[in-house]
Amino acid sequence: MDRDGDIPSGYQRERHLMTTPLRIVLPGLGAVSTTLMAGVMLSRKGLSRPIGAVTEYGDVDGTPIRDLVTSLDDIRFAAWDPFGEDALTVARNSNVLSDADLAPIADELAAVTPMTAAFDERWVQALEGVTHVKTGTWMEQAEELIEDIDAFRAAGERVVMVWCGSTEAYRPPSAAHFSLADFERALKEHDPTIAPSQVYAYAALRAGIPYANGAPNISVDIPALLELAERQSVPICGKDFKTGQTLIKTVLAPALRARKLGIRGWFSTNILGNRDGLVLDHPDNFRSKEVTKLGVLEELLEPESQPDLYGNIDHAVRINYYPPRGDEKEGWDNIDLFGWLDYPMQIKVNFLCRDSILAAPIVLDLARLLDLAARHGEAGPQDWLGFYFKSPMERSDGHIEHDLFRQETILLEKIRSFMVSTA
Amino acid sequence: MDRDGDIPSGYQRERHLMTTPLRIVLPGLGAVSTTLMAGVMLSRKGLSRPIGAVTEYGDVDGTPIRDLVTSLDDIRFAAWDPFGEDALTVARNSNVLSDADLAPIADELAAVTPMTAAFDERWVQALEGVTHVKTGTWMEQAEELIEDIDAFRAAGERVVMVWCGSTEAYRPPSAAHFSLADFERALKEHDPTIAPSQVYAYAALRAGIPYANGAPNISVDIPALLELAERQSVPICGKDFKTGQTLIKTVLAPALRARKLGIRGWFSTNILGNRDGLVLDHPDNFRSKEVTKLGVLEELLEPESQPDLYGNIDHAVRINYYPPRGDEKEGWDNIDLFGWLDYPMQIKVNFLCRDSILAAPIVLDLARLLDLAARHGEAGPQDWLGFYFKSPMERSDGHIEHDLFRQETILLEKIRSFMVSTA
Amino acid sequence: MDRDGDIPSGYQRERHLMTTPLRIVLPGLGAVSTTLMAGVMLSRKGLSRPIGAVTEYGDVDGTPIRDLVTSLDDIRFAAWDPFGEDALTVARNSNVLSDADLAPIADELAAVTPMTAAFDERWVQALEGVTHVKTGTWMEQAEELIEDIDAFRAAGERVVMVWCGSTEAYRPPSAAHFSLADFERALKEHDPTIAPSQVYAYAALRAGIPYANGAPNISVDIPALLELAERQSVPICGKDFKTGQTLIKTVLAPALRARKLGIRGWFSTNILGNRDGLVLDHPDNFRSKEVTKLGVLEELLEPESQPDLYGNIDHAVRINYYPPRGDEKEGWDNIDLFGWLDYPMQIKVNFLCRDSILAAPIVLDLARLLDLAARHGEAGPQDWLGFYFKSPMERSDGHIEHDLFRQETILLEKIRSFMVSTA
Amino acid sequence: MDRDGDIPSGYQRERHLMTTPLRIVLPGLGAVSTTLMAGVMLSRKGLSRPIGAVTEYGDVDGTPIRDLVTSLDDIRFAAWDPFGEDALTVARNSNVLSDADLAPIADELAAVTPMTAAFDERWVQALEGVTHVKTGTWMEQAEELIEDIDAFRAAGERVVMVWCGSTEAYRPPSAAHFSLADFERALKEHDPTIAPSQVYAYAALRAGIPYANGAPNISVDIPALLELAERQSVPICGKDFKTGQTLIKTVLAPALRARKLGIRGWFSTNILGNRDGLVLDHPDNFRSKEVTKLGVLEELLEPESQPDLYGNIDHAVRINYYPPRGDEKEGWDNIDLFGWLDYPMQIKVNFLCRDSILAAPIVLDLARLLDLAARHGEAGPQDWLGFYFKSPMERSDGHIEHDLFRQETILLEKIRSFMVSTA
Repeated sequence: MDRDGDIPSGYQRERHLMTTPLRIVLPGLGAVSTTLMAGVMLSRKGLSRPIGAVTEYGDVDGTPIRDLVTSLDDIRFAAWDPFGEDALTVARNSNVLSDADLAPIADELAAVTPMTAAFDERWVQALEGVTHVKTGTWMEQAEELIEDIDAFRAAGERVVMVWCGSTEAYRPPSAAHFSLADFERALKEHDPTIAPSQVYAYAALRAGIPYANGAPNISVDIPALLELAERQSVPICGKDFKTGQTLIKTVLAPALRARKLGIRGWFSTNILGNRDGLVLDHPDNFRSKEVTKLGVLEELLEPESQPDLYGNIDHAVRINYYPPRGDEKEGWDNIDLFGWLDYPMQIKVNFLCRDSILAAPIVLDLARLLDLAARHGEAGPQDWLGFYFKSPMERSDGHIEHDLFRQETILLEKIRSFMVSTA
Repeated sequence: MDRDGDIPSGYQRERHLMTTPLRIVLPGLGAVSTTLMAGVMLSRKGLSRPIGAVTEYGDVDGTPIRDLVTSLDDIRFAAWDPFGEDALTVARNSNVLSDADLAPIADELAAVTPMTAAFDERWVQALEGVTHVKTGTWMEQAEELIEDIDAFRAAGERVVMVWCGSTEAYRPPSAAHFSLADFERALKEHDPTIAPSQVYAYAALRAGIPYANGAPNISVDIPALLELAERQSVPICGKDFKTGQTLIKTVLAPALRARKLGIRGWFSTNILGNRDGLVLDHPDNFRSKEVTKLGVLEELLEPESQPDLYGNIDHAVRINYYPPRGDEKEGWDNIDLFGWLDYPMQIKVNFLCRDSILAAPIVLDLARLLDLAARHGEAGPQDWLGFYFKSPMERSDGHIEHDLFRQETILLEKIRSFMVSTA
Repeated sequence: MDRDGDIPSGYQRERHLMTTPLRIVLPGLGAVSTTLMAGVMLSRKGLSRPIGAVTEYGDVDGTPIRDLVTSLDDIRFAAWDPFGEDALTVARNSNVLSDADLAPIADELAAVTPMTAAFDERWVQALEGVTHVKTGTWMEQAEELIEDIDAFRAAGERVVMVWCGSTEAYRPPSAAHFSLADFERALKEHDPTIAPSQVYAYAALRAGIPYANGAPNISVDIPALLELAERQSVPICGKDFKTGQTLIKTVLAPALRARKLGIRGWFSTNILGNRDGLVLDHPDNFRSKEVTKLGVLEELLEPESQPDLYGNIDHAVRINYYPPRGDEKEGWDNIDLFGWLDYPMQIKVNFLCRDSILAAPIVLDLARLLDLAARHGEAGPQDWLGFYFKSPMERSDGHIEHDLFRQETILLEKIRSFMVSTA
Repeated sequence: MDRDGDIPSGYQRERHLMTTPLRIVLPGLGAVSTTLMAGVMLSRKGLSRPIGAVTEYGDVDGTPIRDLVTSLDDIRFAAWDPFGEDALTVARNSNVLSDADLAPIADELAAVTPMTAAFDERWVQALEGVTHVKTGTWMEQAEELIEDIDAFRAAGERVVMVWCGSTEAYRPPSAAHFSLADFERALKEHDPTIAPSQVYAYAALRAGIPYANGAPNISVDIPALLELAERQSVPICGKDFKTGQTLIKTVLAPALRARKLGIRGWFSTNILGNRDGLVLDHPDNFRSKEVTKLGVLEELLEPESQPDLYGNIDHAVRINYYPPRGDEKEGWDNIDLFGWLDYPMQIKVNFLCRDSILAAPIVLDLARLLDLAARHGEAGPQDWLGFYFKSPMERSDGHIEHDLFRQETILLEKIRSFMVSTA
């Protein structure tokens, strides 16, 4: 454990740590994870570019953020997955990257084989044929996960966990979630109200490594685990990567609000055909997603302060599993707005995006920035990382900031503060 | 009250002035002008709402901006136009507002008849049958405009001019534009390199009233008139109202830049069928527009600082005169972007907007805010009003801020400063 | 005149009949019905135009179809509706036509008050507050409907019924539907497996008047009623008006097939906010619609004959209740196609249509053409009217023709045959 | 020469000819030509599929059209091009097909090197660096082309020419074009009003081989060459392949006409970045295209017969050179239509197509079907091939059929007649 004791804020500890490898451990070895791995491998060979990563292309007052975070050369990967396939096989089946792109790193990818997963089919409908799993109670499985992590630590690596698994079914927190003591008891009793992603989060925190949640599941955002994060002084963040449609929503809604144009309706539909789409086609799983997606507009527009403009909005979000499209997710938004004298107008946005291509650099950024935060002694919820999430964590004032541009300002301010404390 | 020292010509102390009428004088009595007038008339009767006006719906820290500016009840209108039709006739022919909306204010609109215009057909191709014009040299016409303005001043009104005329042909500045002395000599010689909009701007500044430029013409942004604005201590701003497509562009481009997603191309096309569309269909006039529209992306993305992401963008803007659509302008944008490992994606935005409905509240805001600025002793270019323009004025550091959200912050900061100085 | 032999019940010779009024009786006094009525009233006053009606604008070899059918001047209306509101009130609430359009015919519309409806809330979820209904068993209600019809007949009118009511829940036919004897027994027993629309169809056929079904319900297309139609020598047709998205689908799919371009997926979504949208938002009701909408592609593309091109299509249809849009339905289609060497392409169609505006002329055409058919002795299913339906009736060879252009040819051929026999 | 003397209509001549190779000779070795070649090569190896070819996937009454035409195994290629690059190099630079698709046929493509071209830079603006050209007068160049063709004939091959070169500048016919005698004199005088494509057409006809024109140029459709085609008994057809946007237009317009929905405007814009786009960006060249594209609607809708519905249409077509898109042409259409009571509606079609992928199977079909026609003694304009063209040839009654579905019927009828005469 490295979180107890004094945290040296100076550059020395920093520089020391920067020279050890950073291991990104991923629950879920699917399209996002393998696209991330392939991209890092190709980029460090100079064969492609890690476009979309703020930690690669961003700067603060001219100083590249890249200089503050672990080099691509020092990044390593590992994953847990309930299917036993190696990363090359998964990447090929995911149809995200071309064969030509996979060819030069085929061996490197093939060497990434998943560890057995903590899994429970009741939480992820629609996945079948799962065999590559751990057994025993949730607590026994958590202990195994900690052992998996500790093996990397023992080899001198820093480790960060980013959830890249499927969206789990939406179920409100149960009694087991409200205190660490109850939660640990429930783990031992293999309580069915505990979700696999919560077991992973628990393991990460117990092991003292940062944890980010890329899916809309309730995982680290329960009282029991927030308590553990504080106790362990580990930074955490989430949830649900802000990739396509919501990314656009979080810039268009503030733009209309800035101009005081009213909104009467916002209809968002998506078609996608990857494993994520299959899972989200099940109403239970979709419910988790819907909750994070629907909250955005209300929190952005603050209808109570502008009831004339935003007090009566029909907001709907649909996700449709549509196999022809594979990972090439498409969003179609229709916005019914009104202006001067209530005259109606419409904006339609058609986003032909790529799910994993947009998500991969977010995972890279989060892993690096959580590691940076940990090296600077940050612990608990990292609300300044809200830039990356559909459902960001609350700010200290209780407000949830959804506006992409304010999020960007907050993100860069925090990174600037790390720079200063390092200098 | 705060301002010590001399108050510029024609302006008295704030509280006193708020009780006198504000006369908005408009070169151009077309769709935008009549939509503005109709909206103010309907709103003060409680028959409709001035949606889209920041000076109506905005606030700074909870204080309504409305409290700082002239009430709708105290706003009056006048216009110059080369066609002699009254505002009701124009409004009906413009097909922006329904007959049902025009009915309750028909008499009030019909009473607004235009003054004769300063005009030169060489500057606005495609308009025919113009008869309602002033004669004599440019200087003689300017003097007549000043008399028109002074008549309102003599009646105890504050006056603000906002250019709502057609887009003039694009012609680079000539020798006549570089000093006030040369400019005034050229006015007297009726120099053909002087555009009508420059004559209006000159008249406004000579009369000591604020001037805003809603079109992409070169008007007040020439050295001669900047000199005059400083000498007269009059606030000015411009240019080209940021309404539909560019509004969207100035939020999407910063969003992609925030996420470090690359851009390979941006194709923007428009169809519209109003008088503006007819005028812009002529290549000479369009050239003015193209210049203001094309500059936006480069200034937003700063390609020199991110050549990998924004160094090679094909950016095209098209405007097509298409009569079936009338004032209901439609924009279609296609953005070719690229992300992780250079994989391509596309965003398409289809904006079914309404030209005059989006422009009218901007005119209202600008008139009120320029008047507010004048009452606080502001003079010369008001860069903090860049929020409203496609081609904003330079900031004091030489930078042109296009990002709508930064523009909003700057706007509200300035208004906050007026509040503080008023308190 | 041509027809020798017996003329089916209630019909006299053609020329004579053309001079008597034609009464269109409509189960359902909603947006479609009132838009139809208003349009006929306005058109015969010369205040508007019945655009979209083939019986007004179409011709066969230069002879206007208008000459064959009842003049607009001789058309009258009546309706049954479970809400008691008159046609003017309904038209205003439907927000299809402007107040300006309704004004000149307000009295005429207000005079159309609905007769009490045969209704059962179990068949149309989502409608509440229904009070204007008939009571007694289904058979007693049917007898009342027949009396309603006979009153018009007694006044010398020809009568045609077109179902314009809500979409009923999807339920497979029961034992009661397979023979007329069983069906009549079930009517007397008020069998809950009988739908209101079936009661109307029964009444129409018993009364000897033609019946068209504009909704996707199973109504006249059950063995019991087909048997009755034959026995009564009454022409019938259906079902589900082909208005927006399906209209486009039935021309694009044949175009791709003509060019041998393959189809991998077709995703169709709709947003609409009228009563139809509300009803279809309920899964039971939507199921009826989905069945008629999904069948189209398979029958158009004949995948068994072109398995390489059309053997693996993901076809999805969604309808979303979205109140901001009212009657102005919007369809968005995405088609994933493939061409030479299997390279993928996409077509996206965004149809901003108007539900009732597209449906109203279909009702007019069907009423006139069914009447024309009846006058020519046609009886039973009129497959030549498939041009108007999402789910057309089978042709005599068992094939269902969905191709709009083949349907048009068939329609015009049939009308030509009536012309010849009339000459 | 095989066109003089009796044409045996029986299967024997047919079958004999079917066993000799068919050489498709292409003026223009660009994206379309190389995509065609690659597709035929891949398909006969069983590595891909010639989707989109009616002669591969179509049938007449169950009999595959494939059985009537030359097998893919017997097809050979040759091309003339003003750049000297081989087909592999061109295919790679065209970025139409992936490297993975080109790999297995790289040698075969590399072996296709162009013959020197007849060329004149005044006819194709925007192309630079042209060196691989014939010299001498037009007549001398034509004689060389005939020698090129005769060499294939001498080797026992049948030969068909399909123009796949760039669009030439639009220039109305001159005196030289109105009779064969004048035309041949002008060829000898190297008259600058003669376009290169006319020289190719002349050579084809002189050599007695069929000629199809895939571009909008005026080539074989001048009196002089029509006269030659008749004299030589050679079948010809054109012009301008109907690929993306116009294909859709020729099905949507008839659909709206069938339903008697009015059209007020049709705005069509395209973005593409291949050599075709570069050439069409020049106004002279675009003019040729615009003429063929604009004629479609008028001829489809027959406004004189439906002035209320189609008498006032604003129709605009734009093509924009936009390099990011390469060969992946994108069309965006907006249609303003009106229905019942003149209420307006809109249809927008966004076609993400691929220029060469859509054109290649058309070239294959035309070559095979012209050869089929020639074998059956057809000569002169083949209007039944209008299915493939934006600007089809006149029917014998002077009418130009644009409706895709009527064109399909005519095409299949003609092929059926060949089947019958062959049987």
